[in-house]
Amino acid sequence: MSALPPGLAQELAALLGEGWRTDPGERLAYAYDNSRREALPDAVALPSTREQAQALVRACRAHRVPVVARGRGTNTTGASVPVAAGVVVSFERMNRILDIRSGDRCAVVEPGVLNGELQTALAPHGLFWPPDPTSAAFSTVGGNLACNAGGPRAVKYGASRDNVLALTAVTGAGELIVCGTATTKGSTGYDLHRLLVGSEGTLALIVEASLRLTPAPQQRRALRAVYRDVSAAARAVARLMAQPVTPSMLEFMDAPCVRLAREVGGADLPADAGALLMIEADGDAATLPYAVEALARAATGDGLLALDEAADEAARERLWAARKALSPALRTLAPGKINEDVVVPVSRIPPLVDGVQALAQEFALPIVCFGHAGNGNLHVNLLYDPADAAQSERAQAAMARVFALALDLGGTLSGEHGIGLAKRDFMPQAVSAPTLSLMRQLKAVFDPEGILNPGKLLPD
Amino acid sequence: MSALPPGLAQELAALLGEGWRTDPGERLAYAYDNSRREALPDAVALPSTREQAQALVRACRAHRVPVVARGRGTNTTGASVPVAAGVVVSFERMNRILDIRSGDRCAVVEPGVLNGELQTALAPHGLFWPPDPTSAAFSTVGGNLACNAGGPRAVKYGASRDNVLALTAVTGAGELIVCGTATTKGSTGYDLHRLLVGSEGTLALIVEASLRLTPAPQQRRALRAVYRDVSAAARAVARLMAQPVTPSMLEFMDAPCVRLAREVGGADLPADAGALLMIEADGDAATLPYAVEALARAATGDGLLALDEAADEAARERLWAARKALSPALRTLAPGKINEDVVVPVSRIPPLVDGVQALAQEFALPIVCFGHAGNGNLHVNLLYDPADAAQSERAQAAMARVFALALDLGGTLSGEHGIGLAKRDFMPQAVSAPTLSLMRQLKAVFDPEGILNPGKLLPD
Repeated sequence: MSALPPGLAQELAALLGEGWRTDPGERLAYAYDNSRREALPDAVALPSTREQAQALVRACRAHRVPVVARGRGTNTTGASVPVAAGVVVSFERMNRILDIRSGDRCAVVEPGVLNGELQTALAPHGLFWPPDPTSAAFSTVGGNLACNAGGPRAVKYGASRDNVLALTAVTGAGELIVCGTATTKGSTGYDLHRLLVGSEGTLALIVEASLRLTPAPQQRRALRAVYRDVSAAARAVARLMAQPVTPSMLEFMDAPCVRLAREVGGADLPADAGALLMIEADGDAATLPYAVEALARAATGDGLLALDEAADEAARERLWAARKALSPALRTLAPGKINEDVVVPVSRIPPLVDGVQALAQEFALPIVCFGHAGNGNLHVNLLYDPADAAQSERAQAAMARVFALALDLGGTLSGEHGIGLAKRDFMPQAVSAPTLSLMRQLKAVFDPEGILNPGKLLPD
Repeated sequence: MSALPPGLAQELAALLGEGWRTDPGERLAYAYDNSRREALPDAVALPSTREQAQALVRACRAHRVPVVARGRGTNTTGASVPVAAGVVVSFERMNRILDIRSGDRCAVVEPGVLNGELQTALAPHGLFWPPDPTSAAFSTVGGNLACNAGGPRAVKYGASRDNVLALTAVTGAGELIVCGTATTKGSTGYDLHRLLVGSEGTLALIVEASLRLTPAPQQRRALRAVYRDVSAAARAVARLMAQPVTPSMLEFMDAPCVRLAREVGGADLPADAGALLMIEADGDAATLPYAVEALARAATGDGLLALDEAADEAARERLWAARKALSPALRTLAPGKINEDVVVPVSRIPPLVDGVQALAQEFALPIVCFGHAGNGNLHVNLLYDPADAAQSERAQAAMARVFALALDLGGTLSGEHGIGLAKRDFMPQAVSAPTLSLMRQLKAVFDPEGILNPGKLLPD
């Protein structure tokens, strides 16, 4: 049973035909995302064209019914959970790659294209789209743009916001807007397309994206550097980022991660390792050895215990084994996990990691940190038993303190996951009152009735 | 004689002390910019602190008096000319570099710091700030941000908008907002700081900027490639941009430019040259030869007449002589020049250049094109005699057609100069009506009384 106004349901059924779903079973499939939160929408719409998307928003606006855009629901913050019910708009049928222009370093796509499908289509052109979230194989470009998805490569190539040229979108007022141009430079009025990136479907529904592509490097080489402690590793990160050869990945693991990878995952790591960096360079056969040499030099300093280089792709896989052993190993500690992706300036990684370990002690819960060190973007994983009410409460309290710590260190709440439901209550700590008020007013311009993804990103 | 309300003049004189100027001679010094347009402000304010800037905006808002932010007036579009009079706010006293953090790749500056001064201060840290407009020695960081300044290096390192992490600013409502964080990744709410970049002082006054820095390459090497015609050069540009070694500069000159450089400037260029590319790579001693080799390979193809490499810095200067001979040579053609910086996708450079030459014929005026080919950002220079009314009229009409041509080719009005007064009447052609309406509404949120730089960027 749908709670939509009958007139609206009829109108949208006529508009969308077979792309209009109100069966409870089908609605359930669009009720959740990777945050494990869940809320049943009143209906699911699968538009095939921008005209359908625009007509849908206009109809919902007239009835003040919520509209929640959805890629494939891989986000971790609850941003695609329809907490106020209404219509979930899934872009799975708008999944065409419309154009690839290699000389212009540009691809034009519909929002429902999977990141992984796009990379496959770009490979024969010698190009790639930089955002590489863990979910890349099954997350959409539209969803990547909505939360400003990043990934390990962002340290060299930027996140989603840095890799989009233009967007066509339907605002909450039902207007079709065209933001930016498919050129790599532009200074023509207000920069609206970057404003839409990371706005989590609260301002407009993206119906077409012109993406900025990068020529694919021919090869990559990995280094694994093990350090005595976090400080030594963080100083190495600062040295690595202050020299001209930017690594194509620069991943960090703290002492509990290293221990887990060794003891549970069976990774080959020294017993006294207090921190680990995975460092990668990419380039061509001629210059890659020099790049690796420059990175090895920068990685070397007081507190380095071991530096291993992968001579080939198989050796690279062996070096990455420690990182890959980590996620399964985490599950052995506790059934539940809160994974938040705070960011601090690179120089503040040591006080962040130390502070997190102090919180782990204070709240008597294991917390491990790993992630994208070159951007200061650490994934803080707090492990607990969700069936244990006291633990759950402590976990929430500890995570609130992690956010406060990151903000104190000049950082921010999220580097690539976004705010969604998970962090919106912390927005007033991260963003000053006048700035937050301005954000609310901007939201009201794009979405005067407040129908787009209500309850997300901005606090009540 | 100032036309300001007496109460406001008294209040601001008390607020700013010696930093408040109403003498006509002093006002005249702030009346113009490099567009050669001119309009006398009622007063000039030289704030020393953000608190003064905020109090000033609040006072002006109460009296609905225009506030026009100004760096050093080097912009070419009239964006800093106070056409509605009011108070010009010059940031020349807010010119401190507050912090340089090399490990974080970040500098924190006040808006009045000169771009050139900043580069000098960064050099000992082995870092630079990428925007390199021609005016770098005497233009301010605040002004660079206001118009999203670029320059030749933007092809590899981005323009101003790509190189800022966070901004503190005073809105037209007199609110102090803090946009972004000084981290290289962020997904916390709406992206306001990039919205302020390129907004030409119409949304807020920037009072502090956290800039994204890049490690300075150790060396550079230049290639000069001469082609039979524009098509051959443009195909080379597409090849250069589709391979992984991004040039640090990729500058284009069309046939009339080459002819002028040879015949008037005395540059050593073949007589049958139809187009020229200046190609530069940067890097370290070990890898630079490979980069130059990759660029030379990409530059080579049908229609290449000559490819010269500069073995050292002196040879590099000789290769650049053709480019440097150009500006003085242009002056021999006509006393007046309109220089606009349209952008098209790289693949559309040939129809842009051909179309411009057709317009030169149609309007019987010399037009030459040169500029930043790797971004498709060409400077279209139309030469005429401003004392000749018929020529002036033809020049305006021809430039309107140049804009229409760039838009037809999927491009935009400006790559790095901005809109200001010069191109605002063309905004309705470049930006769709619903999008322009949205821009106006956003402006009203930031600046409810419309006091910030009235008459600029958005058309009436």
